[in-house]
Parts: sequence; C-alpha cells; structure tokens
Amino acid sequence: MFAEIIATGDEIRSGVLVDSNSGYIAQELEMIGLEIRRHHVAGDDLEQLVAVFKEVGQRADLAVVTGGLGPTVDDLSAQAAADAAGVKLVLDPKALEIVERYFKKLKRQMSPSNRQQALVPLGAAILDNPVGTAPGFMLTIGSCTMFFLPGVPYEMKRMLKEEVFPKLKKIIGDNYSYPLIKTISCFGLPESLVGEKIADITNHFPELKIGLRAKFPEIQVKLYGQGNDRAAILSQFDSATKWIKMKLGQHLFSPEGHSMAAVVGALLRSKNETLSVAESCTGGLIAHRLTNESGSSDYFLLSTVTYANDAKIKVLGVSAETIDRFGAVSEETAVAMADGVRKLAKSTYGLAVSGIAGPSGGTPEKPVGTLCCALSGPDGTDVHKYYFTFGRRQMLKSIFAMAALDLLRKQLEVH
Amino acid sequence: MFAEIIATGDEIRSGVLVDSNSGYIAQELEMIGLEIRRHHVAGDDLEQLVAVFKEVGQRADLAVVTGGLGPTVDDLSAQAAADAAGVKLVLDPKALEIVERYFKKLKRQMSPSNRQQALVPLGAAILDNPVGTAPGFMLTIGSCTMFFLPGVPYEMKRMLKEEVFPKLKKIIGDNYSYPLIKTISCFGLPESLVGEKIADITNHFPELKIGLRAKFPEIQVKLYGQGNDRAAILSQFDSATKWIKMKLGQHLFSPEGHSMAAVVGALLRSKNETLSVAESCTGGLIAHRLTNESGSSDYFLLSTVTYANDAKIKVLGVSAETIDRFGAVSEETAVAMADGVRKLAKSTYGLAVSGIAGPSGGTPEKPVGTLCCALSGPDGTDVHKYYFTFGRRQMLKSIFAMAALDLLRKQLEVH
Repeated sequence: MFAEIIATGDEIRSGVLVDSNSGYIAQELEMIGLEIRRHHVAGDDLEQLVAVFKEVGQRADLAVVTGGLGPTVDDLSAQAAADAAGVKLVLDPKALEIVERYFKKLKRQMSPSNRQQALVPLGAAILDNPVGTAPGFMLTIGSCTMFFLPGVPYEMKRMLKEEVFPKLKKIIGDNYSYPLIKTISCFGLPESLVGEKIADITNHFPELKIGLRAKFPEIQVKLYGQGNDRAAILSQFDSATKWIKMKLGQHLFSPEGHSMAAVVGALLRSKNETLSVAESCTGGLIAHRLTNESGSSDYFLLSTVTYANDAKIKVLGVSAETIDRFGAVSEETAVAMADGVRKLAKSTYGLAVSGIAGPSGGTPEKPVGTLCCALSGPDGTDVHKYYFTFGRRQMLKSIFAMAALDLLRKQLEVH
Repeated sequence: MFAEIIATGDEIRSGVLVDSNSGYIAQELEMIGLEIRRHHVAGDDLEQLVAVFKEVGQRADLAVVTGGLGPTVDDLSAQAAADAAGVKLVLDPKALEIVERYFKKLKRQMSPSNRQQALVPLGAAILDNPVGTAPGFMLTIGSCTMFFLPGVPYEMKRMLKEEVFPKLKKIIGDNYSYPLIKTISCFGLPESLVGEKIADITNHFPELKIGLRAKFPEIQVKLYGQGNDRAAILSQFDSATKWIKMKLGQHLFSPEGHSMAAVVGALLRSKNETLSVAESCTGGLIAHRLTNESGSSDYFLLSTVTYANDAKIKVLGVSAETIDRFGAVSEETAVAMADGVRKLAKSTYGLAVSGIAGPSGGTPEKPVGTLCCALSGPDGTDVHKYYFTFGRRQMLKSIFAMAALDLLRKQLEVH
C-alpha cells in the first residue's frame, strides 16, 4: 500500500510560494507506516489537474491533495476531482453547513462566492474544517482513495490529524502503528556540528530514527520512534535525550521542543521573577517573541525599543556622556540600558541589546553583525559582545534576539 | 513549449527536507518565458526514477532535474537517466576533469567513489560545476531535453545560470521572452471580497493573468504579463492598477507590493516626520515590523511595550485614574498612551494600541479580539475601536499591528 502527494496552485507551480505542505504530509504519513512514492505539483489549470488526478488515481492506493478549495475562480480542485472521477459537482448540505458555521463564528456576512466551496464531487465524503471556510472531502478516483484538503498550512494540519488519520487508520488496518516524535531544541552550534556531535546516536539507539532540522536560528533534533509499545518508545526517548544532553551540553535549551521565549518564560514564572527589556537593534523582536507566549504578562513588564539616542537618554537614563564616549553600540551603553530599564520597570532582570543589524551602519571596528548584550539582575550586571556573520538584516535581528534570551536563560538555569 | 521540474532524493520524498529548488527553478524558467506545467518528487529508487524520467520525457519539451549526482550508492540520477534513455553509462573525460579539479582546488585526496560522478549516460553533454564535485549533464529522453543538476542549492543556482540558461536560450529561440509580474498589496477586506470586487478585471485586461494570494493579514493581487513588448506590458500594468485602485479604494495600500511598514516608513521619510509607538497587546510587533525596514532609524524613534499597568503609568504618564476608571483596554487609555509616547519621544506622531490578544483576558464587554488604537499628531488625537474574530493569539497580534499601521497610513496619505 503506497501513497502519493499532490500540491496544487499557481503560486507553488510558479515558485512564488515554496510548498511546505507536501513534506509535512509525507512525514506524517510515513509515521503511520505508509510508503510515500511520489509528490506532484500542478497549477490552477483544470486540464493539468484532471490529468494528475487521473494518473495518480490509476497508480497509487492513497493520495493527499492540498489547495484549490477556496472561493475564487482559481480554485479548481473540486471540479477537477469530479471530472477525473467522471461524476458531477453537487451542493453538499454538510459542506454548506461548515462554510456557514465559519462565517457565523466570525460574525461576518457570507458572500455568494463562498457557496461555491460547498460544491463537491457526487459521492464524496465531507471532511470537516474547524478552523477555516474550506471543507475538505474524500473521493475515490480510479483505484485510489484521495483526500482533498485546503492549502492553508494550519487548516491542513488540523484536518490531517482530526479527519484524515481516523479514516486512514480504518483503511490501513493492522499495518497502522502509532509513531511518536520528540523534538529537542538547540541553539549556538551550526547544524553540521550538531550532526557530528551526535553522529554516533544510531549505534546507541538503533530503534530510533534521527532527523536534524534547521529552524533558524535554532537547530532541532528530532527523534522518531515506531511500534505498538508506547512505553518502550517513551523510555528510549528519555535515554536518547539524556545522551544528547551529554553531547550538546548547554546548547540544548529545551528537551521538549519549546521555543526559547517559552523556556525563559517558564523559568521566570517558576521563580516568581520579572523581566524588562531595552532593545535597539532587535527593534521589538525580543518583546514580540516573549509576548507570543500566552500568559507572558505574568513576568514580562516592559520593553523599550529605543532607536534614537535621545530616547535611550530620556527613557532609560543612559548618560549622554556614555553614548558620546563609547558609542550607542558598546558594552558600556548596553550596561546602562539594562540597568536603566530594570530600574524603570522595577523588574528582577533587565535585559538590553545594542548592535548593528545592517545593511548600513557598520564600521571596521564595529561591523554589521556586532551585538552588545547586557543582563542586569540582583547580583549585578553582566555584559557580552558577539559577532555574527549572517548577511541579512532580518536574520541578524532574529539571532540577536535569540542570543539575548539565551543569555538570560543560562543565568536563570544557574540561579 | 513547456517544462517540468523533477526533484529527487529520499530526504525530500519523506519530508525531512523541504524542496526549495523546484520553486526557485520554476521562477527562473518563467522569467525567460517558459511555461512550467508540473513538478515531481521521487526518492532514491531506481525504478521510480526511471518511471518519472520516461513519463516526463514523453510529455514535456524541457525538464530540469535536481539531486542524485553525488558519490554514494543512493545517487542514482545518472543510472536512471541512462535506463530511461536506453543508453549505457560511460566514463566521461570532461566530467572526470571537473571532479578532479575540485579536489585539487580543495587540496584533498579524491576518493574512489568520486570517480562514479564522472559516469554519465552515453550521448550526454556535460554541464560544468564550478563550485562542487558533481558535474551535471544534458540528455534527451523521449522528446524532452533534460538538464540534470546537483541538489545542493548554491551549486544548482550557479549552474542553472551559467550552464543551463545559455543552452535554453538557443533552444527557445524567438520565443524567449521576458515576463513581468506586479504585486499589489491590500488590507482590510477578506480574500473572497477582493476577488469579487475585481472579478471583472479579465474582461477589461484580457492580456493579463490575475492571481490572488492571502499573505495574512494582507491580500496580494498579482498581475502577470508576458511577451516581447515590455513597454506595452508595463502600460497594461499601470492601467490595471488604476482600475483596481478604483475598485478597492483605500484598501489598496501599495501598488508596488511593498509592506505596510515600508509604506508608512516612506511616507514619514518623505514628510520629514517621526514616529513613536506605545504597544501593549501587539507586544513589540509594530516596532519589529517598522525596524525590519533598513533605514527606519530615520523616522522611528521609540516604542514602549508597556505590558504592566505600572509601566503605562510610569513610562508613558498615563494616569492611574484613567486605567482604574476605564480599564487598560479602553479608548481613553489608548489616547493617553499615544499622547504620552509622543510627548516622551518628541515625535510628530504617537501611535498606541491596547487590546486583548487572548487566549485569556477577554470579558463579555471586551472579548478577545478587541483593539483600541489611538493616533496622536499635530492636529490632535484620534481613537478607533476594532473587533477582530480571528481565533489565534499570533494572528490577532499580527492583524492588530497591521490595523494600527494602517490607521497611521491613512492619516499620512491625507495630510
């Protein structure tokens, strides 16, 4: 029994958008024991879509199709599926209910074009979409059971789990096994070095499959376990995690795959401590990351994004002399910012960054990629200087924010 | 004349690695006037590879294949291409020279397995690889000219440009044309409504192809033009943009596809005005977006992310009474924050948001999704209240930040 994956849409066909759905679906399907043979991409073109659906329908046992279920004239997946199966499109009451329910929930007027989303091939089984307008459907084309899902990643992921997997389970029967995945988050080493440090892992844990994923600026180690003995797999995960921790040391920041902001937040909450941040080159990104965590108001009090020197002086109380003498990007200014914001917010910690994200503003002494990062706390103020060589402004902002939060994390883990 | 794209490799087939090569190649090929019909992914499996190569060989005029040219047993592209074309593999002296040259350059010993990389299908034309070990080749399979390139992105990109394009240009001949794409950015209408409002566009501009893309929280309208008369296409773009502006009014915020932060930044710069921001529920995201634009220090002076009420009072000078009486999320508090940050930073404008991003913190009067947004400027302070029904915290933060910047944009466009 094997499966193929089809992504549809002109954005993907023409390369405007990279198709991340197919890879995700492939990983998920392999985890439950299905063999994936091929992926396909076709644009918003009826003839091409029909051709791909028919071809896959003759060859594969199972297929997952993403995209083309929206309300516009470009959305042709239902029509193409109907044509490929040789059936008509019909207005499905259950599908219509899903579309209407969504608009009711949003308290918005449903537009006539959204009714089109309830048109599905005759004989299709509707797949519920709890988080979007587009219902999915399951349809047999040729000798293949095909699942049609929206292209919006979080809608697709939710439906794959809640709607497709239970049906697949029945189809696959005894071959279905419960896969388990564990993600371990690391920071501060390049992917290749993480790979080298843990290369030996397959000898120690031959039952586990290992993957590395660069989710800039983190590196994630993924452990994949499979079989019917859940407890045995979880115990292998535990041992493997300890082994990896031994190899990577402090670079491993979450054995649960949490984000750096979540790890820092949990540490602050558990200690009943608070944080304020003084940002310049990160431009609000540290605060943005911290506040992406629900409940962050428990420990996050204030961030000041002081781009202008005047703001550093007036808001944070950095002295004009410090800036004049050492520059806005200097260890001295970072220390004054960290102390200033901590005092202003009366927080346990004050974290400050000052650096050069580029593309302009670099000098031979302080090139683009320079970061000064200071942490003010009950025991005094620490300051560190870093130099990163990533070229792009947004990558630098991202790694600057990560480095600053990592500094705080290490401090919180020790104390 | 049309092309297909094939990515090979088990990492891509199984989803461990996302295939970014095919999208890149599609964009590049479309740019020179080639139509891309389909993409394919197949793993490191000789039978599957031969099947895909034969299938595409019968259908397409041109194809680009990436991956499978390395020195390991998994690298099967040359063997599969030879099988699909019905020819033998031969050791090519030019290919061997490329492999040897690379090892000489690195001052490394060439391993016997690397000799395998000089084995190519009989009749193939070698494509030089100036930056890696794997030579590429060009081979006719069926009625299709196929270009085989390594999967390492920077090797592939370099060879596509230096080796494939000159050959393609000769093959395409007079049909070689420069296509043009124009992106128009909109905000404040759902995708379906944008689609309805401009549905008629194909009647007015039949030469252009139109696409819609939801890049939350923006909606992008894409215009695709093609042909040899660049000036004529650009003139159609201009007319179509004016027509779309007429239909979408103020919802169209950039006829050049720029981001909202870039549009606001350009307006501020052109007027020599400055901005400070007081954030709470957006948690630094407004500042992050503004500072993603290089040169934003020209107009962006300060953002304060005042999560705690105490910080609102102490940093921004909001009165405790205002917060007590109306609540932290209220039009009154937003106004006080906007006025406060403007005064603190001495900026032309002060923009403030206060709202509830959830998932907790909502009440029946002020449910999750409520946003109060105030803009303080030389002519006084405006305040608006919004209610968004997107469920997720990060989506709400994103649309809150967009709505606030949009308020400022409209003000800047009028004055």
